[in-house]
Amino acid sequence: MNIATKPAGLSVTKGPLSASKKVYKSGAIHPEIRVPMREIALHPTSGEPPVTVYDASGPYTVEDVNIRIEDGLPRPRRNWIIARGDVEAYDGRCVRPEDNGFASGDRLTPTFPFRHAPLRATGRRAVTQLAYARAGIITPEMEFVAIRENIGRDAARATARDGESFGAHIPDHVTPEFVRQEIASGRAVLPANINHPESEPMIIGRNFLVKINANIGNSAVTSSMAEEVEKMVWATRWGADTVMDLSTGRNIHNIREWIIRNSPVPIGTVPLYQALEKVNGIAEDLTWEVYRDTLIEQAEQGVDYFTIHAGVRLHYIPLTVDRVTGIVSRGGSIMAKWCLHHHKESFLYEHFAEICDICRAYDVSFSLGDGLRPGSIADANDAAQFSELETLGELTKIAWARDCQVMIEGPGHVPMHKIKENMDKQLAVCGEAPFYTLGPLTTDIAPGYDHITSGIGAAMIGWFGTAMLCYVTPKEHLGLPDRNDVKTGVITYKIAAHAADLAKGHPAARTRDDALSRARFEFRWEDQFNLSLDPETARAFHDETLPKEAHKVAHFCSMCGPKFCSMRISHDIRAEAQKEGFQAMAAKYREGGDLYIPVEAVVAEG
Amino acid sequence: MNIATKPAGLSVTKGPLSASKKVYKSGAIHPEIRVPMREIALHPTSGEPPVTVYDASGPYTVEDVNIRIEDGLPRPRRNWIIARGDVEAYDGRCVRPEDNGFASGDRLTPTFPFRHAPLRATGRRAVTQLAYARAGIITPEMEFVAIRENIGRDAARATARDGESFGAHIPDHVTPEFVRQEIASGRAVLPANINHPESEPMIIGRNFLVKINANIGNSAVTSSMAEEVEKMVWATRWGADTVMDLSTGRNIHNIREWIIRNSPVPIGTVPLYQALEKVNGIAEDLTWEVYRDTLIEQAEQGVDYFTIHAGVRLHYIPLTVDRVTGIVSRGGSIMAKWCLHHHKESFLYEHFAEICDICRAYDVSFSLGDGLRPGSIADANDAAQFSELETLGELTKIAWARDCQVMIEGPGHVPMHKIKENMDKQLAVCGEAPFYTLGPLTTDIAPGYDHITSGIGAAMIGWFGTAMLCYVTPKEHLGLPDRNDVKTGVITYKIAAHAADLAKGHPAARTRDDALSRARFEFRWEDQFNLSLDPETARAFHDETLPKEAHKVAHFCSMCGPKFCSMRISHDIRAEAQKEGFQAMAAKYREGGDLYIPVEAVVAEG
Repeated sequence: MNIATKPAGLSVTKGPLSASKKVYKSGAIHPEIRVPMREIALHPTSGEPPVTVYDASGPYTVEDVNIRIEDGLPRPRRNWIIARGDVEAYDGRCVRPEDNGFASGDRLTPTFPFRHAPLRATGRRAVTQLAYARAGIITPEMEFVAIRENIGRDAARATARDGESFGAHIPDHVTPEFVRQEIASGRAVLPANINHPESEPMIIGRNFLVKINANIGNSAVTSSMAEEVEKMVWATRWGADTVMDLSTGRNIHNIREWIIRNSPVPIGTVPLYQALEKVNGIAEDLTWEVYRDTLIEQAEQGVDYFTIHAGVRLHYIPLTVDRVTGIVSRGGSIMAKWCLHHHKESFLYEHFAEICDICRAYDVSFSLGDGLRPGSIADANDAAQFSELETLGELTKIAWARDCQVMIEGPGHVPMHKIKENMDKQLAVCGEAPFYTLGPLTTDIAPGYDHITSGIGAAMIGWFGTAMLCYVTPKEHLGLPDRNDVKTGVITYKIAAHAADLAKGHPAARTRDDALSRARFEFRWEDQFNLSLDPETARAFHDETLPKEAHKVAHFCSMCGPKFCSMRISHDIRAEAQKEGFQAMAAKYREGGDLYIPVEAVVAEG
Repeated sequence: MNIATKPAGLSVTKGPLSASKKVYKSGAIHPEIRVPMREIALHPTSGEPPVTVYDASGPYTVEDVNIRIEDGLPRPRRNWIIARGDVEAYDGRCVRPEDNGFASGDRLTPTFPFRHAPLRATGRRAVTQLAYARAGIITPEMEFVAIRENIGRDAARATARDGESFGAHIPDHVTPEFVRQEIASGRAVLPANINHPESEPMIIGRNFLVKINANIGNSAVTSSMAEEVEKMVWATRWGADTVMDLSTGRNIHNIREWIIRNSPVPIGTVPLYQALEKVNGIAEDLTWEVYRDTLIEQAEQGVDYFTIHAGVRLHYIPLTVDRVTGIVSRGGSIMAKWCLHHHKESFLYEHFAEICDICRAYDVSFSLGDGLRPGSIADANDAAQFSELETLGELTKIAWARDCQVMIEGPGHVPMHKIKENMDKQLAVCGEAPFYTLGPLTTDIAPGYDHITSGIGAAMIGWFGTAMLCYVTPKEHLGLPDRNDVKTGVITYKIAAHAADLAKGHPAARTRDDALSRARFEFRWEDQFNLSLDPETARAFHDETLPKEAHKVAHFCSMCGPKFCSMRISHDIRAEAQKEGFQAMAAKYREGGDLYIPVEAVVAEG
């Protein structure tokens, strides 16, 4: 998926969101770690402490921060990785013309100013978080996510928990040991390529906060590296937990380097896209060698997870022939074409064990692609989709046998009544490996609004247990999302993920809802704006009708106007309630006082 | 809720949507009825017949239609009503200065050019669709909705049905007798005031298509009647099945007259708002007499359903005191204030039987208001809310005993895991009377995006059995929705309602999805746009990236570009599939051919 934006020079969006301040918490086991959080200050009249929220935006939202994308971000994880003593620096693969689609001269995106020698595992070691977890080691990355996931939990302990978790086990307090166990069991993934030390560790699993991914990528027309970096920064500013670079065309290698060196979140890719560019877009010309070379190229750069469509097997392809929309996954259709042309089993499936051996040497996590996902309501939950899912289950076992971290990609287009079956089947056949779904879209009839058709499905499947939701923008099926579309997609998916956390009974999820609702009830307009997912839009909408500063403290809003304000009346009622005997009176009425007219009487009357 | 729009003179939006044509079907029992439908023409290359869809937009979308809002719409139902021989025309109540908030001179909105003498039941007759249904009479209104609800069902008979209806009984074919039974049982409401003969009959019940309502209303600053009529026309153009006029301030009476005389959909109101204006906005000064006078005033004008907050009883008010957001319903808070001030039971509750006697004489349906609905996630499903719901159940029995049609209003703000309990309780305590909910919003943290936070809840509760969904616009909680907000709200709720119909297993719901998906797969871009809920936006988004006319027939889109198009590759695969032996080969592989590598082997290897 590509993104269209206006050239932005080398500057990226910086500075904190309104009323927000970046704070850090350090570790107990690993004192050197600094876990970032966002503190939202409330108006003094609230008498409430700041609300601390999860913050995926990285250093860009620090006040007066001085970031030059030519420098890349600091590399906090570097020392942690070296300290494990199981990696070696090496020269690495030389960049070749085909890595950038043979772009040259003006058409070649400038190389990132300097190059860090890549790291890889020494010998045949597995340097994955899964390997460490199985060995009983609590890495700094694990403690980092434990602290990060705990935001607000201790403060929320007072409030009673409710929710329906459908078998998820969400603890009141997340310990580093809990994180280790979840990773060791394969129920959670901590994407952390040893060559992406700029990243702030985060975890994907159904016993943790629901995460969201935003897709970016350069368009066919060359776009500058600054634009691509800005798209990543912009998406994370609004809450994207990971970003997938789905670039096609020229300059894929160089642009990816700029993105990774500046990304605080894990970066995912679909290596097949670049491999295809290397063979001039001719699917039949793809070979294992070209693909393997691409995996190593990207692993050395620091890609944190690979989408690999190894479940698209030759004998499943006929199952798609009678579909309404055939194969809608690009990776899936490319592999299907290759399989048919050569009349051979997918080289991704046949070489999967070798792919694992590459991934374990860099800790690149798998995102097993659903190349046969349904592209329409008509094709949902069909034989092609579920056959592939079973193969993804097999591949998960193979990857786990090699200490590789795995998540499973899911649909797609699915009507509401068929969503839960997807989650249940995935849990059953993939051994509880995290599910990572695109939507699903709950109807096909609203192009232009597919962030909404899919936001409905995303909230539901997130509630049922999906660990990460891949966003859909309003431009889905129609065109290239611009800046506003990216923001709309991210905010819509933050809504879906948060609604899911609330429904699952996450102990701290309600903290922000309650704080905002109290602000609403007390007419603290600025607090309402600042606590919302998109303060700028909330403020702008309010000001369209009531622009005056005075209205920011007005005890009414434009919906009802001063006369009718229900909340103001509620305050009068609350005052009334302080009067003696009110509660007693209420009790009396509850038992049925003299004002109580039994139905029968009323029915009889007239 | 008020709406801000630009002055529009006396003109309203007219003309068909792109590629659409209005067609009519007449009745068998009542040959004189003409049921409107929208036919969407497909490109000749599709080889498919036009797709016929439900059409709430009335005469405004007829080609070259000549409508002058000074004339009002034709009154097709007039003869049906007269023919029943149970009504009489009478002078009716005289318009008083307070009906328009004492507006005069320039501030007084012009009176509608002429006045139809109102009709009312003769003697103590009940002229409600419920009374006729119980008497075994199939009215023209009932046959009208049967034909309307049947759109696409016969054509769809071939396709297998699936879905989870949670106890709803959705027939393959809707007969007029089925409609009669549903109304007689109270499971469905057909809002049809005898003084609103301009309306095109529609039905609200969980065994029919899920409907949506849009709220309009003049803002505190005087707005012209033409603007208000345009808001109604605009909302129905995009699919609003009913419209509520929530006007406050001056000119309520005159503006309502302009709206009703020009409305093809049922109009709902909250009479309490106007009653309050009549006592200068002082809740304590409200009296049964003023309220009763307002009911008659509005019933004579043709209001099809009244929201009546008769469930807000004195002894429930203390239950709201410890809430995070108290009472958020305007009607609810006004009645609470009255009850507290006078320390008396609600006059709406005490006089409910008399209210029924007014409604049965005009066939005004009840929409029993949820004055104590939760205004925040924290307050969802609490004692105040459910106590009121039980009272609404009592009142339903009272209204049914008087042959009055009833639906029940529902929340509000409810997290996903508490939504179904709302539906189940409502079905249980209100005897399956139709549920009519606002959202619910599934989180409080996204002001500016509450059409989305609520669209998620609306789709789910619609699936569970809610019969009508009241829209929420992006401006909810913040300001006055403009034209674009109204459209966004309506489209979002059409998505929710349709997603619910799909999930419930409505026999024809998938027809439009499948037609659009086939168009997508065959690159019929114009058909994709025309079949979508909002053709204008879909086309505009596509043209942003690929403006050329040639691209409307291009066998690729801007998402992937020509090289990668998965759908095009699928076509190659389909061609391949025609070749002999492909299916056989597939079968062989499915049994596990020589290309099949058992997992163990792969695991063992390396």
